[in-house]
Amino acid sequence: MSKTIIYTARVEFGDCDPAGIVWFPNFFGWIDAASRHFFASCGVPRWEETTRTLGVIGTPLVDTRARFVSTASYGDTLQFAVHIREWREKSFVQTYRVTRDDPEGETLILECEEVRIFGGKRPDGRMRALPIPPEIRALCE
Amino acid sequence: MSKTIIYTARVEFGDCDPAGIVWFPNFFGWIDAASRHFFASCGVPRWEETTRTLGVIGTPLVDTRARFVSTASYGDTLQFAVHIREWREKSFVQTYRVTRDDPEGETLILECEEVRIFGGKRPDGRMRALPIPPEIRALCE
Amino acid sequence: MSKTIIYTARVEFGDCDPAGIVWFPNFFGWIDAASRHFFASCGVPRWEETTRTLGVIGTPLVDTRARFVSTASYGDTLQFAVHIREWREKSFVQTYRVTRDDPEGETLILECEEVRIFGGKRPDGRMRALPIPPEIRALCE
Amino acid sequence: MSKTIIYTARVEFGDCDPAGIVWFPNFFGWIDAASRHFFASCGVPRWEETTRTLGVIGTPLVDTRARFVSTASYGDTLQFAVHIREWREKSFVQTYRVTRDDPEGETLILECEEVRIFGGKRPDGRMRALPIPPEIRALCE
Repeated sequence: MSKTIIYTARVEFGDCDPAGIVWFPNFFGWIDAASRHFFASCGVPRWEETTRTLGVIGTPLVDTRARFVSTASYGDTLQFAVHIREWREKSFVQTYRVTRDDPEGETLILECEEVRIFGGKRPDGRMRALPIPPEIRALCE
Repeated sequence: MSKTIIYTARVEFGDCDPAGIVWFPNFFGWIDAASRHFFASCGVPRWEETTRTLGVIGTPLVDTRARFVSTASYGDTLQFAVHIREWREKSFVQTYRVTRDDPEGETLILECEEVRIFGGKRPDGRMRALPIPPEIRALCE
Repeated sequence: MSKTIIYTARVEFGDCDPAGIVWFPNFFGWIDAASRHFFASCGVPRWEETTRTLGVIGTPLVDTRARFVSTASYGDTLQFAVHIREWREKSFVQTYRVTRDDPEGETLILECEEVRIFGGKRPDGRMRALPIPPEIRALCE
Repeated sequence: MSKTIIYTARVEFGDCDPAGIVWFPNFFGWIDAASRHFFASCGVPRWEETTRTLGVIGTPLVDTRARFVSTASYGDTLQFAVHIREWREKSFVQTYRVTRDDPEGETLILECEEVRIFGGKRPDGRMRALPIPPEIRALCE
């Protein structure tokens, strides 16, 4: 388990497609920002610093699942509630519940569940999953 | 079942993040282009035209699942093999197998499976799922 | 002349390129959002509404000039000071001064000057420049 | 003067905004890809390699000017004719003429002129303009 952090995004005109609704890849852009925002809010430093101290260059995605419930359009403000549901040996499960506050109450826009790793570089330059750094996990709990 | 169509994308410098690899939301941008390319290759006209003829404004995503296997970087050319695995009453399952041709053979980059609908506008402006238009299904098989 | 409105943007990891700095097209994304934010802050309604009331579908860009002074990276918060410098008969000049507050003071990131029009659709579907709607100009001054 | 290289881009649904036309920041994305494509076509290696051999980490933009003449929409294929108009001591002027082949002939979409530098990192991590590397200039002429 972990803290839950809220990331807020405004939907802009350019985030929407010719159907007038958010073009779905942009949701993943905000989700990635929300993931990073989660770690920053917990006190995890920039990846340049963790590269030096822990060999962690970032948290690449290995698996994602998203369920789109309602559309959103420009002018909307979206709340992304971010949470780490599970810590595994070399990966973790990060979840996102995305909502919009409407006059008639909260509207669920989408839910997303990801598996990410703490990525390090192998000598040949390829990415590998590092064991969860205990320093980072402690900051997030 | 359906035809399988190949969509090709070049990875550009600006598609990559500070870790030097494709920023994952960009994969979903190409996947969305590949989905549209599939229909265009099958002879389905632009959504403006199907809006007039069938009330179909596009194929919004309701669910997606992706598994990221290898990273990609700028200079790479990626092949997206697109296919409709299943036709349901008011939705369909579209799949993507993304590969790169390397000197030592084909490298699997990611696999993605989506549920999409043929979307129409309700009188209140919200989106609804239309029954699969038989004209479109016939073009895709 | 016009009001000056401040639009604020956070720079995210995914906004940066393999050199670790903002990929410049993303600056134009924020500039476009800042332009729309200027009109929204002045009380101009959404383009769907102005399409109905004034025939104005948006404010397409006809000319832009930008001068990039300092780089920015993820974690930065940028201020976009937006202003309409000049109203012409069928176009207007909108300017942006983009800064970051640093410990040692304000850092200029870039300056941009655009010519935009209030766009309407011609019967053949192409775009044309409408005379500046006095209702909109009054809201912005 | 330099060679002229053609970069080709397809306009996708997701490149377009609620007005149904290309959202202009996407033109700058293609322009940046076209700039890199120019150097790649001339035989200039990836920036990781030039970082090691010449200290050149890329070609950051210092000034850009674009004039938008016609709109484009999804389904269009655009040609970007890229050229280096002028070599200065520590910068160069790169130009882009963007067209679409239409049944009635070539349509001019936009013209863009940029000033870029060959960027190196200063000891404090900030960017500086390097003298034009003669090896790179020779490849481009």
